[in-house]
Amino acid sequence: MAHIHTYLINGSFDTTISPLDRGFAYGDGIFRTMKVTNGLPEYWPQHYQKLVADCAAINIVCPSAELLMSDIQALYTPTDTAVCKIIITRGEGERGYAPPAITAPMRVVLKTALRTYPANYLSEGVSLHVCKTQLARQPQLAGIKHLNRLENVLARMEWTDTNIADGILCDAENNVIECTAANIFARFGNTLVTPCLINCGVTGITRQHIIDIAHLVPLIVKIEPISLTQLFLADEVIICSSIYGAWQVKKIMQHTWAPNNLASTLRKLIKT
Amino acid sequence: MAHIHTYLINGSFDTTISPLDRGFAYGDGIFRTMKVTNGLPEYWPQHYQKLVADCAAINIVCPSAELLMSDIQALYTPTDTAVCKIIITRGEGERGYAPPAITAPMRVVLKTALRTYPANYLSEGVSLHVCKTQLARQPQLAGIKHLNRLENVLARMEWTDTNIADGILCDAENNVIECTAANIFARFGNTLVTPCLINCGVTGITRQHIIDIAHLVPLIVKIEPISLTQLFLADEVIICSSIYGAWQVKKIMQHTWAPNNLASTLRKLIKT
Repeated sequence: MAHIHTYLINGSFDTTISPLDRGFAYGDGIFRTMKVTNGLPEYWPQHYQKLVADCAAINIVCPSAELLMSDIQALYTPTDTAVCKIIITRGEGERGYAPPAITAPMRVVLKTALRTYPANYLSEGVSLHVCKTQLARQPQLAGIKHLNRLENVLARMEWTDTNIADGILCDAENNVIECTAANIFARFGNTLVTPCLINCGVTGITRQHIIDIAHLVPLIVKIEPISLTQLFLADEVIICSSIYGAWQVKKIMQHTWAPNNLASTLRKLIKT
Repeated sequence: MAHIHTYLINGSFDTTISPLDRGFAYGDGIFRTMKVTNGLPEYWPQHYQKLVADCAAINIVCPSAELLMSDIQALYTPTDTAVCKIIITRGEGERGYAPPAITAPMRVVLKTALRTYPANYLSEGVSLHVCKTQLARQPQLAGIKHLNRLENVLARMEWTDTNIADGILCDAENNVIECTAANIFARFGNTLVTPCLINCGVTGITRQHIIDIAHLVPLIVKIEPISLTQLFLADEVIICSSIYGAWQVKKIMQHTWAPNNLASTLRKLIKT
């Protein structure tokens, strides 16, 4: 019966979000989205580790893994294949940017359906838009999947063509950083390059996973700036996320790539 | 009886905020805070105009002034002196940055008590912290009072000393931009300088009011970059907000200013 619900707030089906919650008031919190297979989140240790790290980066005490896992078990049946979004905020506070002396973090576990993507995303690859919206340079918040996501929203509003799977986000110097909801890799010969995310962008766990297993392909990984011009010269471009694993990019503006093997090889290696 | 409530969501005392509300999920919305005297918000036309402009900047349709005013009248008694915070979000959406094709903006009107500030804030002036947190350069969102306020939160967490009234925020080039919850002006002789906010910062309505009436002091207004070093050389520094009007700054780090007249003159002119 509990499974008719789609979310839990602080472990309860009856709790609501207060307008004084700092996640709502200021985006004062963090989140992660993961794929749930047979009732359990894939790569949970990695996701939980990143929840803890992102909370710590803005001085929030992350709820325990046990607490979050018990929420997940209350929300998903053992046969559920779906998406799980976990949001952790600093909790309620009075008006004003100063957090209360003692804060009680608030957690939301939200169940949504796994989207069905067009079949040719896997067989041929995806097309990407190049966003006009640029990511601001903010080293203090770079890498963190925090709730301040207006840049992604504005970027995502730039296209409505359903043939476009995602959009490339660059910084003000036209360095490629990521996509609105994915990280990005470019292969040049036997070198796999992914942008450095110390000034902006989100460090996804699938990105880290690909960095860790690239030697099995075998490829040498380099984390360094890539300009948009350099990206167009890559032998292969792929984007990745916790939901779909990896997709080959077949088209960015007038630049096209023939079907190739990297995305499917990576999908097998990361088993998504 | 309605007046025991402290907030209205979409004009209702019973509505709650969904975790799918995009204001909560992404900070996809805007807000303003204003002073309510005898049940009515001060400078309402200016605040409403800014609500409309900020909504338009991120493509949200702002609720009508009539609707917001009816919320305010339901929440405040004709003798109430308090603070009113209005939050407008893009409303609910499915998971993902793309807004739904048809969106229904969500509005929150939140009543909070007017804070009592130490008496010497008015008589002597205030001390300011200089924040290590820097404001990122993001011209697409500059000026807008949007819900992505993690920079302000991190900056505000830098001090706990209750003798510090606010903190100065600079950009990455050490240009003074604003305070965490105020705009800033520096007087050099008969020139009043306030930072240019085209790359970051919030354009407050009291800032605009001071720009508009400075000729009555009389002072010449210049909107241009001010470095922190230049700020320390000012004859007077003041900060301003819709809640307290204007305060003189008496101390920033080791730099001090003797009591002077500008803040009180401006308070009289703007009648706050």
